Amino acid sequence: MAVTFRLTLAYDGTDFAGWQEQPGQRTIQGVVEAALRRVTGQIVRTSASGRTDSGVHALGQVASFNLDERWTPEVLERALNSELPHDVRVRDVREAPAGFHARRDAIAKRYRYVLDDSRWGDPFRRRYAWHVRQPLDAQQMHVAAQAWLGSHDCRSFQTQGSPRLTTVRTLREIVVERLSNDARGIIHVEIEADGFLYNMARAMVGTLVEIGRGVRPVAWAADVLAACDRRQAGMTAPAHGLYLLWVRYRDEVAEAQSG
Amino acid sequence: MAVTFRLTLAYDGTDFAGWQEQPGQRTIQGVVEAALRRVTGQIVRTSASGRTDSGVHALGQVASFNLDERWTPEVLERALNSELPHDVRVRDVREAPAGFHARRDAIAKRYRYVLDDSRWGDPFRRRYAWHVRQPLDAQQMHVAAQAWLGSHDCRSFQTQGSPRLTTVRTLREIVVERLSNDARGIIHVEIEADGFLYNMARAMVGTLVEIGRGVRPVAWAADVLAACDRRQAGMTAPAHGLYLLWVRYRDEVAEAQSG
Repeated sequence: MAVTFRLTLAYDGTDFAGWQEQPGQRTIQGVVEAALRRVTGQIVRTSASGRTDSGVHALGQVASFNLDERWTPEVLERALNSELPHDVRVRDVREAPAGFHARRDAIAKRYRYVLDDSRWGDPFRRRYAWHVRQPLDAQQMHVAAQAWLGSHDCRSFQTQGSPRLTTVRTLREIVVERLSNDARGIIHVEIEADGFLYNMARAMVGTLVEIGRGVRPVAWAADVLAACDRRQAGMTAPAHGLYLLWVRYRDEVAEAQSG
Repeated sequence: MAVTFRLTLAYDGTDFAGWQEQPGQRTIQGVVEAALRRVTGQIVRTSASGRTDSGVHALGQVASFNLDERWTPEVLERALNSELPHDVRVRDVREAPAGFHARRDAIAKRYRYVLDDSRWGDPFRRRYAWHVRQPLDAQQMHVAAQAWLGSHDCRSFQTQGSPRLTTVRTLREIVVERLSNDARGIIHVEIEADGFLYNMARAMVGTLVEIGRGVRPVAWAADVLAACDRRQAGMTAPAHGLYLLWVRYRDEVAEAQSG
């Protein structure tokens, strides 16, 4: 009798070659499946809500897997955290309905991107935020980003070589916010959508940074979206500023995961 | 004509063998003096307010040095930050009175120690906080620590093999504070004194953690101090939770450095 489990994970992506298992590489899927094997004695395959890239972090990644026997979620959580390296932590384990699949059943996700526009860069955030040397106008970035709300063809923000059935995605919320009253420091960009194309969040941030620096006007955000052409958008922001905050599933109220 | 400068530094101590230059080791003094040499063309010797140990961090370490010619502080700050690795940042440069010495002239210092008593440890804090598996009673720790305020022989908190003229130190403030309303998470311990014996802040934290875990009563804090015996105190807390917040000098109002 197979039992389906749902795992919520936090990880520091710095020392990983992304989620997906690859021979000879340290990956999150690799260490999670190794821990599951040691705990259960079985070879267990996991599916994540999506593959985070090399260096991308997560506060609430979700993965699903099947076990041949019933485990108490608390016992499984404790056993896995004892086996996992300290840069991957299980935040929650629960039994899921039979057939639950973390990628196929996801209906929404939220990412956070952390920007550091302090003059010299915070030494404690160099692995956790993108340091942009010029001061950014967070308010202009926020206004510009609102043009992307709703359902649109988002192929301007998709890295090529990633065929999808459709490039239409629905953005539910995008917020650009400076964390303190200082003129320079930390800015959060949070993006919530029904799904993300490959590198979409990072290309959106790269585009907003051009606006924040004053290189492009606010109206450029709408132009980039309408162009349906990746070459019109800004650069892909580096991986180490990106965090998968949470994944939402059918019949679920959004769980805001604390940072 | 020698001009004396005063440098305020922030650094992530993770990848350093402490402040003090040692052959074949990456040290903060080593990279700062190398940057000064590249910027000024001179061999420059620096003195810090104190030697931080391997793995200890700083938000406001102070160092002094002399140059043969006058430099605009802003120009020197920019040039040094361009040469320094990203885990060491110059926060401030200023000309100091002739003869200023960062160690000899210091009259007070404040350290912060960061504890993580979350169940599994925050993966993003594993380099920046001491993960204690048991929940800690921060309020009891705070009450206990108040017994150490004032001037006392602090040799119970001094690692042996560090001879000093006197082991009396004056504690001005010690605050133990849980950062959120959650039952478990992050706790800050801040200690301000006219000076610190070797490993004193870390031995005090190790002692408070015993009380926070409920292994020792609140009154034990006073007993440990009175014993004047290092073997009576708790363990030396690990280096990676400790931050030098600021150093105060004569004729100066305390500068609270933001974390």
